[in-house]
Amino acid sequence: MKSWSKLLGAVLALALLAPAWAQEEDGYDLWLRYRPLAGAERAAVLRHARTLVAPAAPSPTVQAALDELRRGVQGMTGRAPTAAGRAAAGAIVLGTPASLPAALRPSALAALGREGYVIRRMAPGVTVIAANTDTGLLYGAFAWLRAVGTGVAPDRIDERAVPKLQLRVLNHWDNLDRTVERGYAGESIWDWWALPDVRERRYVDYARANASLGINGAVLNNVNAKPEILTAPWIAKTAALADVLRPYGIRVYLSARFSTPLELQETDTADPLAPEVAAWWRRKADEIYRAIPDFGGFLVKANSEGQPGPQDYRRSHADGANMLAAAVAPHGGVVMWRAFVYAAENPVDRARQAYDEFQPLDGKFAPNVLVQVKNGPIDFQPREPFHPLFGAMPKTPLMLEFQITKEYLGYATHLAYLGPLFEETLRSETGRKAAQAAAGLTVAQVIEGAQVPGPLTGMAGVANIGSARTWSGSHFDQANWYAFGRLAWDPQASSRAIAREWAAQTFTRVPRALDDIVALMMDSREAVVNYMTPLGLHHIMGTGHHHGPAPWVADLARPEWNPVYYHKADRGGIGFDRTSTGSNALAQYAPGVAQRYADPRTTPETLLLWFHRLPWDHPMPSGRTLWAELAARYDLGVTQARGLRTRWAALAPFVDVRRHAEVAARLDVQAAEAQWWRDACLAYFQSVSGLPLPPGVRPPAQPLEYYKALRFPYAPGHG
Amino acid sequence: MKSWSKLLGAVLALALLAPAWAQEEDGYDLWLRYRPLAGAERAAVLRHARTLVAPAAPSPTVQAALDELRRGVQGMTGRAPTAAGRAAAGAIVLGTPASLPAALRPSALAALGREGYVIRRMAPGVTVIAANTDTGLLYGAFAWLRAVGTGVAPDRIDERAVPKLQLRVLNHWDNLDRTVERGYAGESIWDWWALPDVRERRYVDYARANASLGINGAVLNNVNAKPEILTAPWIAKTAALADVLRPYGIRVYLSARFSTPLELQETDTADPLAPEVAAWWRRKADEIYRAIPDFGGFLVKANSEGQPGPQDYRRSHADGANMLAAAVAPHGGVVMWRAFVYAAENPVDRARQAYDEFQPLDGKFAPNVLVQVKNGPIDFQPREPFHPLFGAMPKTPLMLEFQITKEYLGYATHLAYLGPLFEETLRSETGRKAAQAAAGLTVAQVIEGAQVPGPLTGMAGVANIGSARTWSGSHFDQANWYAFGRLAWDPQASSRAIAREWAAQTFTRVPRALDDIVALMMDSREAVVNYMTPLGLHHIMGTGHHHGPAPWVADLARPEWNPVYYHKADRGGIGFDRTSTGSNALAQYAPGVAQRYADPRTTPETLLLWFHRLPWDHPMPSGRTLWAELAARYDLGVTQARGLRTRWAALAPFVDVRRHAEVAARLDVQAAEAQWWRDACLAYFQSVSGLPLPPGVRPPAQPLEYYKALRFPYAPGHG
Repeated sequence: MKSWSKLLGAVLALALLAPAWAQEEDGYDLWLRYRPLAGAERAAVLRHARTLVAPAAPSPTVQAALDELRRGVQGMTGRAPTAAGRAAAGAIVLGTPASLPAALRPSALAALGREGYVIRRMAPGVTVIAANTDTGLLYGAFAWLRAVGTGVAPDRIDERAVPKLQLRVLNHWDNLDRTVERGYAGESIWDWWALPDVRERRYVDYARANASLGINGAVLNNVNAKPEILTAPWIAKTAALADVLRPYGIRVYLSARFSTPLELQETDTADPLAPEVAAWWRRKADEIYRAIPDFGGFLVKANSEGQPGPQDYRRSHADGANMLAAAVAPHGGVVMWRAFVYAAENPVDRARQAYDEFQPLDGKFAPNVLVQVKNGPIDFQPREPFHPLFGAMPKTPLMLEFQITKEYLGYATHLAYLGPLFEETLRSETGRKAAQAAAGLTVAQVIEGAQVPGPLTGMAGVANIGSARTWSGSHFDQANWYAFGRLAWDPQASSRAIAREWAAQTFTRVPRALDDIVALMMDSREAVVNYMTPLGLHHIMGTGHHHGPAPWVADLARPEWNPVYYHKADRGGIGFDRTSTGSNALAQYAPGVAQRYADPRTTPETLLLWFHRLPWDHPMPSGRTLWAELAARYDLGVTQARGLRTRWAALAPFVDVRRHAEVAARLDVQAAEAQWWRDACLAYFQSVSGLPLPPGVRPPAQPLEYYKALRFPYAPGHG
Repeated sequence: MKSWSKLLGAVLALALLAPAWAQEEDGYDLWLRYRPLAGAERAAVLRHARTLVAPAAPSPTVQAALDELRRGVQGMTGRAPTAAGRAAAGAIVLGTPASLPAALRPSALAALGREGYVIRRMAPGVTVIAANTDTGLLYGAFAWLRAVGTGVAPDRIDERAVPKLQLRVLNHWDNLDRTVERGYAGESIWDWWALPDVRERRYVDYARANASLGINGAVLNNVNAKPEILTAPWIAKTAALADVLRPYGIRVYLSARFSTPLELQETDTADPLAPEVAAWWRRKADEIYRAIPDFGGFLVKANSEGQPGPQDYRRSHADGANMLAAAVAPHGGVVMWRAFVYAAENPVDRARQAYDEFQPLDGKFAPNVLVQVKNGPIDFQPREPFHPLFGAMPKTPLMLEFQITKEYLGYATHLAYLGPLFEETLRSETGRKAAQAAAGLTVAQVIEGAQVPGPLTGMAGVANIGSARTWSGSHFDQANWYAFGRLAWDPQASSRAIAREWAAQTFTRVPRALDDIVALMMDSREAVVNYMTPLGLHHIMGTGHHHGPAPWVADLARPEWNPVYYHKADRGGIGFDRTSTGSNALAQYAPGVAQRYADPRTTPETLLLWFHRLPWDHPMPSGRTLWAELAARYDLGVTQARGLRTRWAALAPFVDVRRHAEVAARLDVQAAEAQWWRDACLAYFQSVSGLPLPPGVRPPAQPLEYYKALRFPYAPGHG
């Protein structure tokens, strides 16, 4: 074996000399690349991963952990560890309290719960990965590989981790015809047609990637659900996917259309209080659980944007959710009921409606219901304040919903690392308190369950995953999947640290280059805010497809579909007054927060026009007028977007030719589209303000009519 | 270099010892796998491909040839040939008459034309690849690699080839929203949204695959075309693709919607004889050719299945085609005008309509128009007789259209090698003669231009290519792309030889295994005919999606959409009388052919019910009644489908685990669906014949109503 290992070392060295096309990467391996290490690093890994010791008759989950360790060590060193019966120097030992000998058993294992793990050196040269369950062992195996992949010396790995949220779930907005609503990474990864017979290898790689982050649930279909998903053929397809995902600790969930039994013509109503309806759902749940014993439950979008729901029968959201919850409760399932509702006939500020609807229902939901609340009160904008429901429903488990796919932030074309956006929401001070506590809670603490006793906690991310070779439509969009997963495990983690961890595994560990990539990522989302919606502007994008600027749109059927509803710009000023002189949406926040945001002088500049309508000559902290500040922000966004391009160009020596070029091509588009956003928005706001452009601000490249005439048929992701 | 080469040899040997997942293949490399050779074979290739000699300042096309040779030799031997200035032993010399020294110039180069090539040993150890153009050199390079890849010793390669058809074109039925009509291999490979800025690496690999077969044209969009494809943004996208494909000898074409100027509101009519319309198309052609100087031309589906066309203005197909032809003629473009027409208001046998419409127009088309005729008179059925237009339009270039995607032969799920289907059409005797000839012409000879002077000849294949990792939705479907390309180069080639060539490059060269794979391929299409539409039955599949059996359908708006229109089964018998006592479609064939098919006794059994309506007790050559024969054929199909599965299982030792399993999963589905076809069809035909099942024939697994109730929402490929 020794001579082979030497030869393989030579092989790996040679591989570096192969022609360019052979070295190029296509991104499919995500952050699980396990590329060859060199010199001392390689030797250290070899020394600490010579053998693997696992419980006898390993479960499929332990088998997955062992396979991943073999794959990783093989990739990094050229030599896979061998199986061993007992721990000696060079061993990685995977074990639960039942299987570990006392000498190798780390302390306080019970506190790890069902999914935590510990990695510890328990004897000279012996690394123990311990957990209470096989899933914990799998997570530990991935953690060991992540540590090595980010440059931690194998003898220094000492990690203990327990997830802070129970449900860490991707929401796939994937349709049964394999299109994906708001998908920018090709068609759905679920080949529904070929299922259940054909199980693509890609499903396993999807499971590996999620397990590496601790994501433990996947809602397979669009929240705008079709009734067919709950028919026998689709239950069989779902069961096949569940079989593939199960060893990786991932449960499947389905989005359910509230009117399913009625539309399948199996009941005469969908009224949640009608006994026949409740009975239908109980039978349906039984049928599903017979095929999928660990089925997670249902995600429901009801009475929102045209979807059916309990209000069609004058029942409340709680009535609807609880009826479904009763159907899955005997099987241990949950219902994730979305709070994203706004109604056609409701003239109230859209930002208020979810709170108005749901806050009064606090305490009325069954114990296995989570109310799933978007990060902000409108809809996944480049920047929103946190949703006022966080902290305001102390008797109800709230599940936070982020959008990983970039519906409003440049699709998969623009580089926008969402870690800072996620972190901004999670670290927002709600001004609300836990029952006995003195200090106020952050959003993270609220969803971690500080207010609600019991185990139901969770975070959902609308997936950016498709059949594209890159999975996410671009290399950098993989970081958003990664960041969601890591923050779902620990909502108080640092988005910068996560960026560093991701980039080290994905691109390079050369410190200077890594620093530059992380800095570029950390700047990217703010660049998008600046060139799209600075100073608290929101919802001024193109109709339907949501691509590009369209602040002028004023002719859509419902007022709150129109960008003019949100910016309200005219000769007198710009912005949405959500204070007591306006919609008073502010009153939905805790008094301390509301008070701070009530005054433009104490409102963060980043949210100014979200909460306030102000005259164009309103003085800004910079000394500029609001109008000049707005122009300056748009200009800054363009400069930042161009900067991303320049900074990436300088990183060419550190990234393989293919991935570098693929990122660069998108950054070219981003720079051009940043200019387009800036030009179109300034042209429009100038036309309504009637003001000359501030001194030094270049006029837009085209007249306003040019931008208004642009059309984008066949834009992706729009049903 | 010598020691490296040894080391790399060792590397390759080691690679064979790597764990299973590392060796597995996903099919992306198609037949261009260039996997490591061993021993004497490797040494022989190394000896004959040490250096590459090319003209100075090589064009992008020559560069592509050199890159491919380097990639191939590197893959097969571990060592890439180096560039050399002059030919010595071990050199491969690429040259045109202008660049080759006389001693290395093979004879009769002029006869190679624009695309032919010759590969010849011109000095000891010196291989010359010669052609008149760089494209010829590229084809020659691929031919050399194909020869080596199929096991020809490098010193034995002696090949001279000239394509027999001028236009060898894929028709992509790809929509602008990236769906693919009748696509079963994922979404379109064209990422229209990201174009022209982002040029996927996959486009280059697509070009390489096509160039390896000599395919020299691609119609990028669906024949059911949208007007937007001819607007400026899409011309720019098309130009970007043309730039990628050009070095590989591939021209781009577009499908044009006949009413485009009217629908874009740039004219008030689409009447082909209106001067403003002709002028619009001339301007549009000029605009396209400014962006794409070598644009191929237009493909048009007009007055067919709801598409607009010249008949909307009481003009003929020739009027329409010639108007478009005039627009592209100054630029050297062509128009491919489809003869696939049938009209809602026409009560005539659908099989007759294309001939009725087009034959009288013979001689009326402009010289740069080809009339594109499907292989058979209905629509890409598992078996059809050849189309009667072949040979019947001696003054018009006819382009043959095959369907590579398996709309009617089990999508990408069923294994059906189409080589024999293509060959069957091409070798059909038309009974028509060339002007001065004594012998009748085959379809191949007709499309090769035996009747029409001048250079316009061609073959089109409706592509089965998508974004699936396998390109074609399954590994074996790649063979259909391959076979189309090779037959477009030489319509008289053997489909069996092509299967062998493909399988040797794609799976294995172990003779016994190769024999088995080829045999399995050669049997596969007949199996599909047997379990779907034996004895000349046709068009009895499911409505719309065309999946599965539905011979009972009788309620669709147009008679010729209904399966019952085609089989006409009732108590009295089954089959479509197309003789003089029936629709007399037979009269469209040459007298010799018509005479043979007029009598059931001289009609090939395979086409019996295509041409004849016969009583259930009609005696068959086997001695069985027609009813018993029909049942026997369905049973045979099921047996054959199961046989494919068994035979493939035995090939496990010769194919990597992943591809073997992926094929096996589909063969399981095929066997089950063969049974379904057989059961549903027998149940239905029994219900209309009123006859008991023939002795020994097992009853269908389910009652007829079960099959009739099956529904397939969200089936792929159906718009």
